[in-house]
Amino acid sequence: MFRITPIKNGICCIDGIYAGGVKAGFKKDDYDVGFIRSDTSLDIAYLFTTNKFQAAPIKYVKLKNIKNTNFILANSKNANALTGIEGIKDIEDILEFLSTKIDVIDPIMSSTGVIGVRLNKDKIKKAIEKFDFNERSSNKFARAIMTTDSFEKEIAFEVEGEFGKFKIGGVAKGAGMINPAMATMLCFITTDANIPQNEMQDILREINEITFNAISVDGDTSTNDSVFLMTTREGDYNKEAFKEALKKVMQKLALDIVRDGEGATKAVAFVVSGAKNKNEAKMAAKALTNSLLVKTALFGEDPNWGRIASTIGASGVECDEEKLKISFENVIVYNRGKILFDEEIEKKAHEIMKRREFKIYVDLGIGDGKFTAYGCDLSYDYVKINAEYRT
Amino acid sequence: MFRITPIKNGICCIDGIYAGGVKAGFKKDDYDVGFIRSDTSLDIAYLFTTNKFQAAPIKYVKLKNIKNTNFILANSKNANALTGIEGIKDIEDILEFLSTKIDVIDPIMSSTGVIGVRLNKDKIKKAIEKFDFNERSSNKFARAIMTTDSFEKEIAFEVEGEFGKFKIGGVAKGAGMINPAMATMLCFITTDANIPQNEMQDILREINEITFNAISVDGDTSTNDSVFLMTTREGDYNKEAFKEALKKVMQKLALDIVRDGEGATKAVAFVVSGAKNKNEAKMAAKALTNSLLVKTALFGEDPNWGRIASTIGASGVECDEEKLKISFENVIVYNRGKILFDEEIEKKAHEIMKRREFKIYVDLGIGDGKFTAYGCDLSYDYVKINAEYRT
Repeated sequence: MFRITPIKNGICCIDGIYAGGVKAGFKKDDYDVGFIRSDTSLDIAYLFTTNKFQAAPIKYVKLKNIKNTNFILANSKNANALTGIEGIKDIEDILEFLSTKIDVIDPIMSSTGVIGVRLNKDKIKKAIEKFDFNERSSNKFARAIMTTDSFEKEIAFEVEGEFGKFKIGGVAKGAGMINPAMATMLCFITTDANIPQNEMQDILREINEITFNAISVDGDTSTNDSVFLMTTREGDYNKEAFKEALKKVMQKLALDIVRDGEGATKAVAFVVSGAKNKNEAKMAAKALTNSLLVKTALFGEDPNWGRIASTIGASGVECDEEKLKISFENVIVYNRGKILFDEEIEKKAHEIMKRREFKIYVDLGIGDGKFTAYGCDLSYDYVKINAEYRT
Repeated sequence: MFRITPIKNGICCIDGIYAGGVKAGFKKDDYDVGFIRSDTSLDIAYLFTTNKFQAAPIKYVKLKNIKNTNFILANSKNANALTGIEGIKDIEDILEFLSTKIDVIDPIMSSTGVIGVRLNKDKIKKAIEKFDFNERSSNKFARAIMTTDSFEKEIAFEVEGEFGKFKIGGVAKGAGMINPAMATMLCFITTDANIPQNEMQDILREINEITFNAISVDGDTSTNDSVFLMTTREGDYNKEAFKEALKKVMQKLALDIVRDGEGATKAVAFVVSGAKNKNEAKMAAKALTNSLLVKTALFGEDPNWGRIASTIGASGVECDEEKLKISFENVIVYNRGKILFDEEIEKKAHEIMKRREFKIYVDLGIGDGKFTAYGCDLSYDYVKINAEYRT
């Protein structure tokens, strides 16, 4: 038995964890370089993108095999990806400079933004000089890592039970190039839970699979996707309670990313059941989040269920039109070979689609595989944002 | 040695082949039901969609195992897909009615349009009554099968060599739900070449792989994709010449579909080389045609090569940033670990992207696998067309 209560201050809900952001001039007039630091060295677990061209900050962490750190430096507007050895050297140079300003233990860098451009080291060093290392603003950090995001993504909980108590907080950024194949663009989670080191990575991977790996904005998997879980170990621990709290944190942040998808006006859960197995349920659900025809129908609030069926049929999963069932919330439009779609049903389904958030249920009627994926619509603004990104 | 000369009249370039279209009222005021027929029974080869929910017209042809026919009835605005047994019965009923109007041998139906709605049999029967069976208008037929297409897709050639001569003509429709996993939406090719029956299917499949299977408008594979190859066998035959002519027909029609992709302003060839093998080259090239971020960059005429690299990295193919090379036509932007992209190169690449058609070269530098895929940009109009499709 345990109780999960929302609290304030995001990643700074943990004692001894500091965070902040400054305006380094990468953005016109907003925070663009930030930090997370800790009084003590933190145990850390992480998941990185499956994109073969992993960005320099990811290569750096893997190269150094970092398991503990007390400092994360993050920047937006430049991904430091496809920058080769030079990109890694830039990180070394920047972190070397950082170490002249504050005591650091195996510091980490994390970047997001345009791919294929060298970092402006001078600007980042000037940002470091402006840091208030005693600041405890999760919000400024959350803003510093935003690119085309329209709002900050933060959350924190306190968890109490017979085992004692711990806290957990997280920040993330998303918006575009979102089809995480391991984690989303950037996500940082802090906790004081006393998790055994050997459980951290497994738990993170398990919860990631049903949260960040279940969302898609545009089907594009970035070079920089990273999720970090850090703990001070000052609190208590209970595995069940921790997994539940971590899931709540990651689900909230993942859904915020979908809600804030580039140009998105709706966040839709595609609940697939009855698949041959879990993997096929995931294939079908992810295919629905990535189909342009489904996404544009969502934008048009058009209950064109034929596009949903066609996408399932093209997704490669085992399916049969005599077994398939499709509903918009509780409105069944197609039931195992029977087209129920008439004017009245269409009107009801259309009303549901006007909501900012709703569920589409697809039952394949074959096995017991289940998966829920979260996607958004495709609007004029997605095209606008991405056609004009660099100009 | 042989010579391929463009000729007129599309599929009606072949003696004894008739085609036409009438206005049945499915469209506001345009041709929407058409036919192709022949004086004699035609040998026929076909390829159908890999979508698991194949439409009723496809199921019908497979069920009857049709190898020869003298009549194809086609309609737009309704795909007769996800309509179950009833959808097949509707075809039987319609073709039964057709047989009271003209002598038919194993007639075929072919449909395109909205999924999940029963055919209006009465309208189609009325259309049949209006057919002028002696009409020889490839163009009217091409218009009758158009949905969101903005122009007719037709082509014909005469091929002459020491072996004698034959003719070949084709029509197709495309526009949306175009990521053919076997053939595009609808394509009909007529010839009088005396091809051995056992070679027809193999040649069609081989040429299809590098033409229709190499294009994508939106990554959505429809329930109705079909390509038909029909011959009267009245002409001569030479395998090499026939393959070359068939390739020219199918390539022209496939490219026309990309050029006329919903909302498309550009047709781009993604020429991938140096892949581990042909399959990986195809995976990479197709991934580029389907990436929303690449497609919106094309629309914005933004030479954001980082998105191309990122898409390659996420496509699942073997790759290495030290071996990768990316060019817009002859302008190299990234060369095996070196970022060549500066203001001058950017300007040159931007100029190339202003063209209506151009090539993007990606050399993976690993093996000798090559594949060229054809795609288009993603514009506001794609969203508009598909958000408003049924309303």
